[in-house]
Amino acid sequence: MQGNGGLDRFFRAESVAIIGASRGSGKAGNVVLENILANGYRDRVYPVNPQAEEILGLRCYQTLGGVPEVPDLAILAVPASGAMAAIQECIEKGVKAAVVTTSGFAELDGQGADLQLEMVRMASNAGLRIMGPNTSGITSMPNSLVASIFPLGRLKKGPVSVISQTGNFATHTMRWMSTGEHFGICRFAGLGNKVDVDEAELLDYFGDDPETKAIAMYLEGFKNGRRFMEVARRVSQTKPLVALKSGRTASGVRAVASHTASLASNDAIVDAALRQAGVVRVDSYAGLIDVMKLLSFQPLPRGNRVAVLTPSGAMGIVAADACERLGLRIGELSDRAFQELSALFPDYVNVGNPIDVWGAALVHGVYEAYERAMRAALEDDGIDTVLSIITLAPKSVLNPQELDPEKLSFIPELSQQYPQKVVMVAVSGDKDYCEGAKIYLEEHSIPVYLPVEPGLEALAWANQCRQFMVAS
Amino acid sequence: MQGNGGLDRFFRAESVAIIGASRGSGKAGNVVLENILANGYRDRVYPVNPQAEEILGLRCYQTLGGVPEVPDLAILAVPASGAMAAIQECIEKGVKAAVVTTSGFAELDGQGADLQLEMVRMASNAGLRIMGPNTSGITSMPNSLVASIFPLGRLKKGPVSVISQTGNFATHTMRWMSTGEHFGICRFAGLGNKVDVDEAELLDYFGDDPETKAIAMYLEGFKNGRRFMEVARRVSQTKPLVALKSGRTASGVRAVASHTASLASNDAIVDAALRQAGVVRVDSYAGLIDVMKLLSFQPLPRGNRVAVLTPSGAMGIVAADACERLGLRIGELSDRAFQELSALFPDYVNVGNPIDVWGAALVHGVYEAYERAMRAALEDDGIDTVLSIITLAPKSVLNPQELDPEKLSFIPELSQQYPQKVVMVAVSGDKDYCEGAKIYLEEHSIPVYLPVEPGLEALAWANQCRQFMVAS
Repeated sequence: MQGNGGLDRFFRAESVAIIGASRGSGKAGNVVLENILANGYRDRVYPVNPQAEEILGLRCYQTLGGVPEVPDLAILAVPASGAMAAIQECIEKGVKAAVVTTSGFAELDGQGADLQLEMVRMASNAGLRIMGPNTSGITSMPNSLVASIFPLGRLKKGPVSVISQTGNFATHTMRWMSTGEHFGICRFAGLGNKVDVDEAELLDYFGDDPETKAIAMYLEGFKNGRRFMEVARRVSQTKPLVALKSGRTASGVRAVASHTASLASNDAIVDAALRQAGVVRVDSYAGLIDVMKLLSFQPLPRGNRVAVLTPSGAMGIVAADACERLGLRIGELSDRAFQELSALFPDYVNVGNPIDVWGAALVHGVYEAYERAMRAALEDDGIDTVLSIITLAPKSVLNPQELDPEKLSFIPELSQQYPQKVVMVAVSGDKDYCEGAKIYLEEHSIPVYLPVEPGLEALAWANQCRQFMVAS
Repeated sequence: MQGNGGLDRFFRAESVAIIGASRGSGKAGNVVLENILANGYRDRVYPVNPQAEEILGLRCYQTLGGVPEVPDLAILAVPASGAMAAIQECIEKGVKAAVVTTSGFAELDGQGADLQLEMVRMASNAGLRIMGPNTSGITSMPNSLVASIFPLGRLKKGPVSVISQTGNFATHTMRWMSTGEHFGICRFAGLGNKVDVDEAELLDYFGDDPETKAIAMYLEGFKNGRRFMEVARRVSQTKPLVALKSGRTASGVRAVASHTASLASNDAIVDAALRQAGVVRVDSYAGLIDVMKLLSFQPLPRGNRVAVLTPSGAMGIVAADACERLGLRIGELSDRAFQELSALFPDYVNVGNPIDVWGAALVHGVYEAYERAMRAALEDDGIDTVLSIITLAPKSVLNPQELDPEKLSFIPELSQQYPQKVVMVAVSGDKDYCEGAKIYLEEHSIPVYLPVEPGLEALAWANQCRQFMVAS
């Protein structure tokens, strides 16, 4: 295993040792193994624990030295007191990549800072690359490796890779993403105290990674800001880069200092530098998840022209306001689209964009009206994105019927027929119906937002990403 | 029934006739009756339909004239062609209040505009007050009257009343509020084309309504802006007023014109006028729901000082950034709170606000750590709001256990012990756990947001409301 500064050993590891593997449910050294097993990692796993013979059905080794090969990657799930000895063991075995989940270093106190300096000195002399310490781990879905100390469950593979300052941030978030937003990731790294591998190197690596189509980042500071911006300038020409950079405000800066010991920078300078480097800055935690979902499921919009299908005038107005505020615009319909829509509606309806589907639904039924209006908008060269706002509720209060999500199958079908267009959905109405539709549509790669604005914010960020890209 | 310009007949009706009551499931005239029955309206209901003897178990009357009393309120669920005759019937019977759900008036064309002018002329000569036309109806939970043509299901009673330009906006939204956000409302009116009752009169009425503690509005335009602002200036001194005023942008303005035929005004002027009148302007549909939930469940914050409990440094930083951006601030902890928190944490942890609860959770367990940290923050005179960010996920991937929401019972208990403080929760992690916690907590009046920023935005708006209020 060669090249790429050794990061292949982290993300394409064919053998993994877990130092500090544990039989105790909920312990870091147990959860790592559970995650690995739950996600069906197909290569070789070596739990290391001097007191155990078997953990979760896997043969356990008393020492790393006893493992029958030099593993590509070691995951350290040991307490702080044992971390330096474990690093020494890795060096003696000839291991070249280690994820150090252990905390209690620079983020804690001066003594910890000294200790991590010593760790990186030992490691770099031996050619051992380190991720962390104080990280929750890494994930690499192309080879089904989920090496995290947080219980993540079974993840899906997606096209977006993630670089996160802090593992903790990306753990519960990733669990939310996979269970609540139904999208997976490509590769993930929690940087932690980044004594060795940093955000610039990772960005470079993911930039060249053929499996990674877009990169999302949560950052609190930069280890080498100049280098990061150089790499970003290159990568943003071919892949969308979105980032939540926290520690924007005085309160945030104080909180950063006691978290990952990062030095926060003047936010206005960071802001300008990110923009110049082609990194689209997202302004909220929720927004980062929303745009990741859009990038995971849909192509980048080719422009900012949106068609909005709405069941209610009010929602159309709200969507139109949001589009304009966000730098998108309500696209002008072509004559052909206008004619097709007019044929769909009773004579008395004034057809326009936003397209108030209600009139057509009264004539043709809701599903046919939406399908035909969507098709007309997707067919229109002047439209880049079709947002369908759908109200979902039972027709009757006293005799509610279950929603049949299959009735929405025309949406993913149309999306496949127009792969260069962005198709997105916003839902409102009955909770169970909305959730049912969201699960069905997101399992078919249509991003769903509740209610309308968050989806348009995500779209606006995706559209900014496109503007940095060099036409291929 | 007297006073208040006759609006008591709408919101305190002791008898209701439904003209155009229907046996057809899903039809407006059927859904209105279903809503009324599902919500247990205790007074007298008279379906009127010349072709039916009984609808949903209620005796049906062939004409309004045949109803055995003069009903306080008539709901018109007839097609446009029958609307004028129904109005004439109301006048002949001596009815003094009518909700006209029928559409096809000024929002459609010039002929419709003429027709609604004729309607209001007839009605005003006879002392008949009209809500609408082109409205989805009204709701008044203090007397369990849900008279809407959209299937709303069983609603809860809450302290927030709603004025909405358009019924359609508030129908699926109200269904979402009750099923997805677990809060109810006090009274609701959809203005529609507002030929008679308008937003100023309603605001005045809700301002004096002892059941209404706060008022939320969705507006597309003003019938009489000056009068509205005068009323708002008075009411905002005693009750929080929040509004989403759409048609902000050129695209939005065009969409408004074809929706409720409202004339949108210059947005900067509207903005300044609302601010002067004490109306807090919310900038998104989602935000309106979020702040309504906060106002429904919790008191107004006494100030802008927030304590944040977080399971992760990153979430604390994100929350701190959001607070400062929104005009809130991370409160400085008192010596006493600081000492109590210090006793909770291992020695090596630097206690501050945001309060990173993780260290204490390792010692005392998650629930005890959160409970004691929350109590210390609530006890602190320098803190107005406590936001607890909670990560919810199973400890084990392979053997997940069900969340027991009862373990969170300390949160509503603490909220009750400190009724002058705002208590709110943000959750992240496993979808089922997050939903389970949200349902449990919201049923106990603790608002829950996913993830952190939307709750803080709602808090910032609520805090602005307080600033307009005159100390009582």
